[in-house]
Amino acid sequence: MIDQNEIIGLIAAVCTTFAFVPQVMKVWKTKQTKDLSLRMYSIMFLGILLWLVYGILIDSLSIILANVVTATLVGMILVYIIQGKDTK
Amino acid sequence: MIDQNEIIGLIAAVCTTFAFVPQVMKVWKTKQTKDLSLRMYSIMFLGILLWLVYGILIDSLSIILANVVTATLVGMILVYIIQGKDTK
Repeated sequence: MIDQNEIIGLIAAVCTTFAFVPQVMKVWKTKQTKDLSLRMYSIMFLGILLWLVYGILIDSLSIILANVVTATLVGMILVYIIQGKDTK
Repeated sequence: MIDQNEIIGLIAAVCTTFAFVPQVMKVWKTKQTKDLSLRMYSIMFLGILLWLVYGILIDSLSIILANVVTATLVGMILVYIIQGKDTK
């Protein structure tokens, strides 16, 4: 049985993971990334990869899964930002 | 003693918390938020508040502190995005 606290934690994890979806859709539609911080997404991507390593080390499937999804979304935004800078 | 896994987890937490600092500085300098997703920052802010509630419920000082800092940074970006939409 999952207790009440863990349900709140799970909803929190879903929010902070899937929050990046509307940003991915926005840059995908507009191809505009001028106002996005390359430094933010670089540090965020590094942090998520470290969370993934941490999840593997402590053998936590929840941490691994959440961070594989977030790394994919943040990685996509990062590629769009870098491509946007190249073409200018 | 903090073990090696926890050191990786702490570095990960520092990265994903302070990643928002360069984005706050960018919107503060340029006042441009057109490319930022209001939905992303709204869902992220909600998620961080839920992480904060979770931290309080399970009595984890690390989770509480990290999410107070992140909520402040994400909250600042959110205010800038909303202000930017109002003036258009």
